[in-house]
Amino acid sequence: MLQTPSVSERQTILERVCRGERGPRVPVWIMRQAGRYLPDYRELRKSADFLTATRTPELAAQITMLPMRRFRLDAAILFSDIMTPLESMGVPVRFTPGPIVDVPIRSHRQVKALRELHAEERVPFVLETIRLVRSELETHRALIGFAGAPFTLFCYLVEGRGSKDFMQARSFLLREPVAAGDLLTLLGQSMSSYLVAQARAGADAVMLFDSWIGLLGPAEYRRFILPVLQRVVSTFRSQARQPIIYFARGGAALLEAITNLDVDVVGVDWNLPLSDAVRQLGPRTVVQGNLDPAYLFAPRGDLGAAIDRVLESGAGAAGHIFNLGHGIHQDTDPDQVAFLVDRVHETSERLGL
Amino acid sequence: MLQTPSVSERQTILERVCRGERGPRVPVWIMRQAGRYLPDYRELRKSADFLTATRTPELAAQITMLPMRRFRLDAAILFSDIMTPLESMGVPVRFTPGPIVDVPIRSHRQVKALRELHAEERVPFVLETIRLVRSELETHRALIGFAGAPFTLFCYLVEGRGSKDFMQARSFLLREPVAAGDLLTLLGQSMSSYLVAQARAGADAVMLFDSWIGLLGPAEYRRFILPVLQRVVSTFRSQARQPIIYFARGGAALLEAITNLDVDVVGVDWNLPLSDAVRQLGPRTVVQGNLDPAYLFAPRGDLGAAIDRVLESGAGAAGHIFNLGHGIHQDTDPDQVAFLVDRVHETSERLGL
Repeated sequence: MLQTPSVSERQTILERVCRGERGPRVPVWIMRQAGRYLPDYRELRKSADFLTATRTPELAAQITMLPMRRFRLDAAILFSDIMTPLESMGVPVRFTPGPIVDVPIRSHRQVKALRELHAEERVPFVLETIRLVRSELETHRALIGFAGAPFTLFCYLVEGRGSKDFMQARSFLLREPVAAGDLLTLLGQSMSSYLVAQARAGADAVMLFDSWIGLLGPAEYRRFILPVLQRVVSTFRSQARQPIIYFARGGAALLEAITNLDVDVVGVDWNLPLSDAVRQLGPRTVVQGNLDPAYLFAPRGDLGAAIDRVLESGAGAAGHIFNLGHGIHQDTDPDQVAFLVDRVHETSERLGL
Repeated sequence: MLQTPSVSERQTILERVCRGERGPRVPVWIMRQAGRYLPDYRELRKSADFLTATRTPELAAQITMLPMRRFRLDAAILFSDIMTPLESMGVPVRFTPGPIVDVPIRSHRQVKALRELHAEERVPFVLETIRLVRSELETHRALIGFAGAPFTLFCYLVEGRGSKDFMQARSFLLREPVAAGDLLTLLGQSMSSYLVAQARAGADAVMLFDSWIGLLGPAEYRRFILPVLQRVVSTFRSQARQPIIYFARGGAALLEAITNLDVDVVGVDWNLPLSDAVRQLGPRTVVQGNLDPAYLFAPRGDLGAAIDRVLESGAGAAGHIFNLGHGIHQDTDPDQVAFLVDRVHETSERLGL
């Protein structure tokens, strides 16, 4: 007679750690793990440009699975881009390879002309990719869906392209706070429903990437961003049970403010020691991160020692998902990634982390 | 009969504050104050490219003085570039407008082929610019000389150009620590003698710009960078009496480590509240900073309130030099700068800061 598996048996290792349960080991995945450092990714991309690859479910699923076949990673992350859903909100985006918005949003009139995202109708290819990957992936391995956080999308929409300081975007925020607030609110509503759609399609956890939030100080973060993010999280929670991860890159000075956000996991970049982040976030927060991707270029002895230091720092938190502090660099040797994944598993199993 | 002025009478307001003495007000200057946001700068640059402008003392002095004539700033900063002295160390540099090193330094052999800088012989035009500006500037206003900090110069030399993550440079540091250490040491020796030469030529204070140091975590900062910086500072102190300012951009997580550096002033970027920096650096440190340059695009009411908040935060330190947290943006309205300078003076005089 078949037995219904208990909730914790049905959960992936990553989900259990997201919820503060101890897993058999520290789970590990790597930001941008399905990317250009993999020879088979570069080979696949010869026949399809980036946009086509993200919009073709079979191809996107195949790319998502590439690192899962090669390494003993505990989670896959959807192959997509934070800018993918914006076209269907009324903003055409090109990639060169960074995102380009040819007509940047710099007026209230333009903000009002945007449409809220309805993911099922507008980006069905993303949801189909999730279904395909989830059906291929072993049950103990998680699939992470994601969206850009409102401020980070705002940066690209207003600036029109990548930038060191996104001054157009940041000055728009201060110069036209009402228009900027409306844009942030619309992005928040759209991204929460986008994440709900991904969760319903089969994502085991979802992540909000706030890549440019480090450009704001805590006062501006609390004034303009935190309320929007709180609504994103509460809307998601009211419609989905999956854990939610928030990655605030460059957010060393924002961690205290971030404790006001009801997320399951806070992703930490490599700019501060994970132990500092744990101290600021408190022992009840689960953290994700934060090895400096440059260590993948170091000799094995130094890389191993750096991995162990991150694991020891993470042990003070309510849970730890090992990751880099930023996306993996395209010149990285894949063998170093294999070493990293095995080292995280071995050390965390040995030390009972 | 002429009286010799006392030391404090001969000192500029900025110098007094650098040394922890209370001045009549909080002095103010602005990073990149002699730059493209000024119409007269853009006009002057029509007849001379950037390199020519930095190497022609009359022109460089004229540019240095432009904002001093327009605003009631308390300090001028030498018009030059952190990459200027590198050519004479054996590394040709182009500007497009960011610095380009066509043959990046990526081997120990290349490091060994570099020459230590001898400023008097190799960059006499910088020292002549300083003499010209100092002779023109009123006695109560300071002239600040500067150099790139070793790690920031290292980033450009190894990467070959600007970059978001300077991964070539950071991976070189971890992969070849001996060669990287030799390069950092040579840069440190060169920049300390460069700063001494500037002080002897008439600079009232000197500043080390560590624009990319935020790319390192505290462990790597303490291991690779701090000893080099400590030697720069001690060498400078043994040969010059002028105060030294260290600006660690993105260094929110490095402040505790920076307390091990015997500098007079720590420059703070806008990513953390100045009050947080003061708390971490301790009440005996003088701070410089840290208004977000985006506030210069805000309405006057918001700009004024933001200026006052920075002034209040700085009041907890041993002294405060008002500045932006980063260079002024080229699209800034010069009238906003005039407002800022006057507001800093008025508020600090009114509150006795």
